[in-house]
Amino acid sequence: MTRKTNRRILLAARPDGAPKESDFELVETPVPAPDDGEVVTRTIYLSLDPYMRGRMNAAKSYAEPVGIGDVMTGGAVGQVVASKHPKFTGGDIVFGQTGWQDYALSNGKGLRKLDSAKAPISTALGVLGMPGMTAYTGLLNIGQPKEGETLVVAAASGAVGSAVGQIGKIKGCRVIGVAGSPEKCKFVIDDLGFDDCLDHRDPDFAEKLAGACPEGVDIYWENVGGAVFEAVLPLFNFFARVPVCGLIAQYNATGAPEGPNKIPLLMRSVLSNRLRIQGFIVWDFAAQEREFQQVMSAWIREGRVKYREDFVDGLENAPKALMGLLKGKNFGKLVIRVSSDPTQ
Amino acid sequence: MTRKTNRRILLAARPDGAPKESDFELVETPVPAPDDGEVVTRTIYLSLDPYMRGRMNAAKSYAEPVGIGDVMTGGAVGQVVASKHPKFTGGDIVFGQTGWQDYALSNGKGLRKLDSAKAPISTALGVLGMPGMTAYTGLLNIGQPKEGETLVVAAASGAVGSAVGQIGKIKGCRVIGVAGSPEKCKFVIDDLGFDDCLDHRDPDFAEKLAGACPEGVDIYWENVGGAVFEAVLPLFNFFARVPVCGLIAQYNATGAPEGPNKIPLLMRSVLSNRLRIQGFIVWDFAAQEREFQQVMSAWIREGRVKYREDFVDGLENAPKALMGLLKGKNFGKLVIRVSSDPTQ
Repeated sequence: MTRKTNRRILLAARPDGAPKESDFELVETPVPAPDDGEVVTRTIYLSLDPYMRGRMNAAKSYAEPVGIGDVMTGGAVGQVVASKHPKFTGGDIVFGQTGWQDYALSNGKGLRKLDSAKAPISTALGVLGMPGMTAYTGLLNIGQPKEGETLVVAAASGAVGSAVGQIGKIKGCRVIGVAGSPEKCKFVIDDLGFDDCLDHRDPDFAEKLAGACPEGVDIYWENVGGAVFEAVLPLFNFFARVPVCGLIAQYNATGAPEGPNKIPLLMRSVLSNRLRIQGFIVWDFAAQEREFQQVMSAWIREGRVKYREDFVDGLENAPKALMGLLKGKNFGKLVIRVSSDPTQ
Repeated sequence: MTRKTNRRILLAARPDGAPKESDFELVETPVPAPDDGEVVTRTIYLSLDPYMRGRMNAAKSYAEPVGIGDVMTGGAVGQVVASKHPKFTGGDIVFGQTGWQDYALSNGKGLRKLDSAKAPISTALGVLGMPGMTAYTGLLNIGQPKEGETLVVAAASGAVGSAVGQIGKIKGCRVIGVAGSPEKCKFVIDDLGFDDCLDHRDPDFAEKLAGACPEGVDIYWENVGGAVFEAVLPLFNFFARVPVCGLIAQYNATGAPEGPNKIPLLMRSVLSNRLRIQGFIVWDFAAQEREFQQVMSAWIREGRVKYREDFVDGLENAPKALMGLLKGKNFGKLVIRVSSDPTQ
């Protein structure tokens, strides 16, 4: 499929709470042509990830916000359609942070060639990409799982959580997932092999979680925030670790929730249980990328790590799909199929 | 001074909120005599420390609660008055967790001989004892101070905080103290050499703290909890560390404070700034005790670490002194002078 124009989705306004269609704008521009040292890629798969909500805010964080009128940021798998760059040739399949658009012009920095013989190219956005590496590095460096420990994983059917729990099983943990529907919980137990999975929408969620963790919680993988975290709080064992990877339940919040203020309760648990709560982003562990690729690829080949992708067709559907992601409507790694995959 | 009876202060009731006189009971019993393998010590100095409030509760924590009717726990410096233990002789000066009483019977376990020629024996309760080692191990292992970083120290004039800030200065940090009166702040700046010190009772405390930390906060030494922590929260730099050593402002709390619930705000900072918040107790680093003794003794000899002690006379005044400690009424390391110091 070749388009005559380049559709680009821009950030039109900073959302107040949950993003809405009018916070995005689809514009059409000419397909770019490369100058010397440049390459143009056609987007095949665009990754949608919770972190994108943060980039839509103006607030200080670990990365620059997307500017109003700028193309929405995003990792994508594409194919080189024109190149005046010595390292890239037409037809190459590459991964890059090329954004929400049909075509991207690049100087080649940050583009990485993919080998479709090794793994489906879409996995560069999920289990073999940023989400998988987030799971691998955060769990091993901060979570530090030990044989026989209990690991609770929020958003367990998602791109990151599904990998976290499976790595925890490989490391000998008892792994309890938390997910947002009975269907997702069934998948987490039956397909991913977690020991149990609980629906956080269940009115008895906190009691059921306590029942599923009779020996307490040694590691809580925080992907969600809010009520799930507060349900885990009374269950922590001495020296429990809490890698804080995401807070999807809070991203659309416009104010602080009702009281009482539970910071003192949290800090008391930090002190009396000697908790370690630590935020991170995957690039804090950039030096482990090669190790991650090797180990995770092997686990996938051996069938020890499975993954699920949730494809949505059409770039124009990306805003709506991101809105759904922030409400937990996806089931597995959310990927926008922007154009046809020549490797399939 | 030789007493004919042994006064012992027992825990009479678990406090509801702030402890009161009736939560303690002073009883008189015969002075104990040692059996084979035992030693009896006369208490000279009794240490009062914030952790004791926690032991008065029944709740699970890192140590067993004091039982109702049991002698209140506490570290003390004493002199051996009778010994049938091969390692101890009458006249030896020792440190041990011998509790709130005039005389203690011991099997020798946990008793450590002190050399009064090396340092005043009361320092075994403060700068060369548990509080000093708490400061040393917590700051170096969890705080990990680096040259040029900004360290904020709560309860800066206290036994632990005063050592934390001075060690921070030795490691090249800009050190800002927080204390509970203008007089304490003056001491922290003039005598301890902190770069600045702010009174948390000042209505403009949060603004002044921000002004004193123009480059943000890299380490916050948490000794206090509550409003001080929340004032530091907006100031954290990327990769800031928060060793959680105590929460004295919360120990008497009977319920959670008014809303809004600020856990989401805290967790957002943990994520976006990649904070590390970690609770600990000094015995988590027990293996570093010898190193601590050597390094801290040298710093004291060289005048690089100073300390202040706040003596209160009379065992019978210990309950009232502990109540005052929990309200910040002491000024420096609080020590009960139970009987005369033969080394002075």
